[in-house]
Amino acid sequence: MNPPPNITDPLVLFMPSGKRGRFPRGTPILDAARSLGVYVESVCGGRATCGRCQIEVQQGNFAKHKIVSSLEHISPKGAKEERYERVRGLPEGRRLSCSATVEGDLVVDVPQDTVINAQVVRKAATDRVIERNAAVQLCYVEVDEPDMHKPLGDLDRLKAMLEKDWGWKDLLIAPHLIPQVQSILRKGNWGVTAAIHRDMDTSRPFIIGLFPGLKNEAYGIACDIGSTTIAMHLVSLLSGRIAASSGTSNPQIRFGEDLMSRVSYVMMNPDGREAMTKAVREAVNTLIGKVCAEGDVNREDIFDCVFVANPIMHHLFLGIDPTELGQAPFALAVSGSLQYWAHEVDIAVNRGARLYMLPCIAGHVGADAAGATLSEGPYRQDKMMLLVDVGTNAEIVLGNSTRVVAASSPTGPAFEGAEISSGQRAAPGAIERVRIDPETLEPKFRVIGVDKWSDEEGFEAAAAATGVTGICGSAIIEVVAEMYLTGIISEDGVVDGALAERSPRIIQNGRTFSYLLRDGEPRITVTQNDVRAIQLAKAALYAGVKLLMEKQGIDHVDIIRFAGAFGSFIDPKYAMVLGLIPDCDLSEVKAVGNAAGTGALMALLNRNHRREIETEVARIEKIETALEPNFQQLFVNAMALPNKVDPFPKLTEQVKLPLRKAATETGEPGDGAPRRRSREERAARRRG
Amino acid sequence: MNPPPNITDPLVLFMPSGKRGRFPRGTPILDAARSLGVYVESVCGGRATCGRCQIEVQQGNFAKHKIVSSLEHISPKGAKEERYERVRGLPEGRRLSCSATVEGDLVVDVPQDTVINAQVVRKAATDRVIERNAAVQLCYVEVDEPDMHKPLGDLDRLKAMLEKDWGWKDLLIAPHLIPQVQSILRKGNWGVTAAIHRDMDTSRPFIIGLFPGLKNEAYGIACDIGSTTIAMHLVSLLSGRIAASSGTSNPQIRFGEDLMSRVSYVMMNPDGREAMTKAVREAVNTLIGKVCAEGDVNREDIFDCVFVANPIMHHLFLGIDPTELGQAPFALAVSGSLQYWAHEVDIAVNRGARLYMLPCIAGHVGADAAGATLSEGPYRQDKMMLLVDVGTNAEIVLGNSTRVVAASSPTGPAFEGAEISSGQRAAPGAIERVRIDPETLEPKFRVIGVDKWSDEEGFEAAAAATGVTGICGSAIIEVVAEMYLTGIISEDGVVDGALAERSPRIIQNGRTFSYLLRDGEPRITVTQNDVRAIQLAKAALYAGVKLLMEKQGIDHVDIIRFAGAFGSFIDPKYAMVLGLIPDCDLSEVKAVGNAAGTGALMALLNRNHRREIETEVARIEKIETALEPNFQQLFVNAMALPNKVDPFPKLTEQVKLPLRKAATETGEPGDGAPRRRSREERAARRRG
Repeated sequence: MNPPPNITDPLVLFMPSGKRGRFPRGTPILDAARSLGVYVESVCGGRATCGRCQIEVQQGNFAKHKIVSSLEHISPKGAKEERYERVRGLPEGRRLSCSATVEGDLVVDVPQDTVINAQVVRKAATDRVIERNAAVQLCYVEVDEPDMHKPLGDLDRLKAMLEKDWGWKDLLIAPHLIPQVQSILRKGNWGVTAAIHRDMDTSRPFIIGLFPGLKNEAYGIACDIGSTTIAMHLVSLLSGRIAASSGTSNPQIRFGEDLMSRVSYVMMNPDGREAMTKAVREAVNTLIGKVCAEGDVNREDIFDCVFVANPIMHHLFLGIDPTELGQAPFALAVSGSLQYWAHEVDIAVNRGARLYMLPCIAGHVGADAAGATLSEGPYRQDKMMLLVDVGTNAEIVLGNSTRVVAASSPTGPAFEGAEISSGQRAAPGAIERVRIDPETLEPKFRVIGVDKWSDEEGFEAAAAATGVTGICGSAIIEVVAEMYLTGIISEDGVVDGALAERSPRIIQNGRTFSYLLRDGEPRITVTQNDVRAIQLAKAALYAGVKLLMEKQGIDHVDIIRFAGAFGSFIDPKYAMVLGLIPDCDLSEVKAVGNAAGTGALMALLNRNHRREIETEVARIEKIETALEPNFQQLFVNAMALPNKVDPFPKLTEQVKLPLRKAATETGEPGDGAPRRRSREERAARRRG
Repeated sequence: MNPPPNITDPLVLFMPSGKRGRFPRGTPILDAARSLGVYVESVCGGRATCGRCQIEVQQGNFAKHKIVSSLEHISPKGAKEERYERVRGLPEGRRLSCSATVEGDLVVDVPQDTVINAQVVRKAATDRVIERNAAVQLCYVEVDEPDMHKPLGDLDRLKAMLEKDWGWKDLLIAPHLIPQVQSILRKGNWGVTAAIHRDMDTSRPFIIGLFPGLKNEAYGIACDIGSTTIAMHLVSLLSGRIAASSGTSNPQIRFGEDLMSRVSYVMMNPDGREAMTKAVREAVNTLIGKVCAEGDVNREDIFDCVFVANPIMHHLFLGIDPTELGQAPFALAVSGSLQYWAHEVDIAVNRGARLYMLPCIAGHVGADAAGATLSEGPYRQDKMMLLVDVGTNAEIVLGNSTRVVAASSPTGPAFEGAEISSGQRAAPGAIERVRIDPETLEPKFRVIGVDKWSDEEGFEAAAAATGVTGICGSAIIEVVAEMYLTGIISEDGVVDGALAERSPRIIQNGRTFSYLLRDGEPRITVTQNDVRAIQLAKAALYAGVKLLMEKQGIDHVDIIRFAGAFGSFIDPKYAMVLGLIPDCDLSEVKAVGNAAGTGALMALLNRNHRREIETEVARIEKIETALEPNFQQLFVNAMALPNKVDPFPKLTEQVKLPLRKAATETGEPGDGAPRRRSREERAARRRG
């Protein structure tokens, strides 16, 4: 359409994308950006009123690009831009790209709004920049007034103008808006802003909101419905700014702590499914209220919602009976991604808001695992990545750009502190870190909500408020690992009763022995049964990982990502000591927090990520552990500490050294690391 | 995909379409039909269980087509077809085309289910065959059972099978069905019938219903919401059979007799719009109950609904404030066609049913006029057709395949019996036919609900039950025309007081005279004001018609179609005598009953008709009478009886003769026709 660029036209380079092109002098920078496919937001359609299209000019001699960029190469502010600056204010150096024109070579910075690290009830969204391409766009238009000679309806003229000014073809409109069109047009004196959803499953774009005058903000929520916790981000769809992040506990806990007990509740109670659906939807609505209050956002300004959830929460949230998921063949009612009007699932945001649910991978590998997969992107790189999300089931994804396999493994709730005699949910008063002195076998620990270690002065006073109430999931791993490293338990997981002679911490319970972590009220011990529960859980996880490694034909992974709350608080070193995860360079082992929620956020801010994960989920090979003949053997092998197949995690020297240093030289409690004895040392101890 | 036909393959000719092709021996006739685009219904997908694909073989030597068709050229009934015949029965000569195969040259009859003439509260759907291509199709499939190795959701496997067996790509599903998918699949033992809507405004086909096993019937309704009457057809979408047709009065009458008083009600009452919307939707739901009871159909089996309505009823039914339609520039909220889920406008049929509303043509020319235009199809032929639907406004469409223009003209409610001293709605007791003896000026009349004319013996006894209560719209035309033909009123519409000397029927009212139609209780007269009201109404109608004729540059129309209740009961001859309509060969003047409802029915049974009328409405040139400078002059000219511009309707000899004959020779009251005097005769009379 435009004439081909002339070699004498100025060169414009957009950063950070690096896209460049030549444009005649006088070309608005916004137009130049768009013609190159550089994403610059704009609501007002170039009227210099919304201020969404801000850019900055970099000055200097960019020899590499053969560009000298100067403020003289951009037009001075015109009347419209000056008016915007006067009324709304422009940050130093910022220009409105709809008004500023190319007058010479330019290097233009398009400010990227970083999605920043935000705490979500002990889950963290990782730092990353998500390129924005939201499903919802705001478009301001000035509609022709009615004309008796051309009696098109008001809506029809609105659509015609949205096509003329913004290129929207074949627009549909959310039915609830139809009765409002006339009054909104008149209230706005024929100037209105339409919220357009351009990623409808129905293919055609939809007008989902309509506002008199210029509407300059739209929000979305990204939500991860976990069995225990519901986490949510509230984000500006226009700037990508996270307005608030928060979480709440899943009220379904009153129907059953773990997922399978909730499925049982549905099977036993005629109204069970309905009650649980209602409970979780109410909790989501309450949480929306909370993030809106925190972010000072009106919930009516929320136009898009992205959800992830494990398969059972996915079904219960969507009002689907999860009974089939409780028994073989674990049939999902639906595995593909889904779209709804938010109100169809009782989510109280703008009446025209949409809801997108990521696809499920398999009967036990849900939309949350899909979200984590989208976030960490094993398929986006060539190294072999292991992605683990531990809950009642461990959801395991292993792969790279060539091939991705996934499975779930029945770890049971031990890692979450259930089925452990002194286990408890992560909450103030719960022990979260444990160290055992290899000589005295005396423990020291930290509890959530208290800054000091238990052997530091003033600990008891500091802990008076919370008390010391139990052990949370991450500490269970640590205490069992420390017991192993100090020889209190053997490779087979047996508590060494002989040590009772040496330490009052080893106490007899009938035919087995326990380790006394804290005497007092309550008395906190690690029993032989507790160790067995952790062994079973870790064996299940490791066997699942091993099975997928066999499928991939590999004996080593390059990268490990721990997703979820468990992964955020467990120390990867202890996980490797216990043999939860295979050998890997420790610098490549990372906890990524609520990766499922991050994936939801990505799908919220950029609709291309929806297509991406839909495509990937279809490609992922799903492995059902229950159907694999050698899963049982792998499981049995993995019962030993660390594992029979990998007698010791092969920690590299590079990793081991600083660990030892930390433990022996600095003695810093925060980053203290376990010492590891040789087999001989431990054998000697046991004999002693 | 198929190999090219061989010249030695048998030739198959399908009737009535006349489509033909060669097919290898052994080809199922259903497949042959489909490959030629011949529409043959099938629900079971060729399993010989639904019986929807019946055809007949014509026997004989079809020399013209070079085919000898014989029963030996079709395969004998196989086991499946025999089982169907045994269990469900097959009419003589009928075969299941999914089982019967081509074995030689054949002439195959595809039975066409005619949409037959059905009375709808004094409105009639005209006889016509509507080619079926419904928006909703039933498709039976047998779905793969869940497989842990390929953990696709149940819905996803259902969609895959609907694509494999029926070719449906990119299927979506109505959200309310998602929680039901698993139980329906298991109840049907993995055999289910999906109701697919393939004409969604959103482009992608939708699963709107899902049933265990074979579901073999689906219905739709076509509904015309008039200001006074709501009329409805209930139709099988599979066979085209009309199961029932009925009507009910529009309960909005309690808010205002005519449309403008209803708009006023909305403007004056804060809840007025809501109350009227509720009233009309309730009436539609009640009427659905009525047609379902009559047709012995479960309302849950209704999957598609097509509505037409005038602009104000269109808005009120859809919950849109009609205030803008009550004042210039008469802006419609929306003029294009609309789709809804039926439940979104509170229509209680199957939860997945869709609703299609035809487009409106202009602020006073509604979806009902679009329906009538679709039904009569001026644009489908070359002759110049005038289509008139008279209500409070006359909606006028004039055109042919080259060009169509439309307008509405403010006739006011006189033609409906309002604003007439003895006027009343068409109801038992209302006078519906009138004749005046040219010599004695004595009247005779018929009333609704009584078989005899008022001058026949036993009339008074027969009329005792109903009484004689007033004059309905059609009779007002007749009595004024008769008064004109007998010289009681002049060309200017003045009641000739001099005749009072000659007849006691002419009585003085202050400064003007009236004609006494019936003495008694009540006393029924036609006053000078009544005549004026009819003159104004007919002038408005004729001026509108004339305006459109001017736009078309014509002085004569080829065809006239009277739509609507008024058109059904008015005698076209009298309409022409009074000058309501322009000169036209009387054999080309027809009342077509509720053409708007017929148009709705066409759009219901064949989705192509939806595209057809959407395209045509966009093409129609809309004329706003209020903006036309010469409309006032045309109006004034049309006040005279019959009209100044057409001093006499130029009835052709051919038409005039049988009329005279009818009136003078047979004297049959039912088809009695007016005698017309020459100007001289009438002038002589007046002098006399």
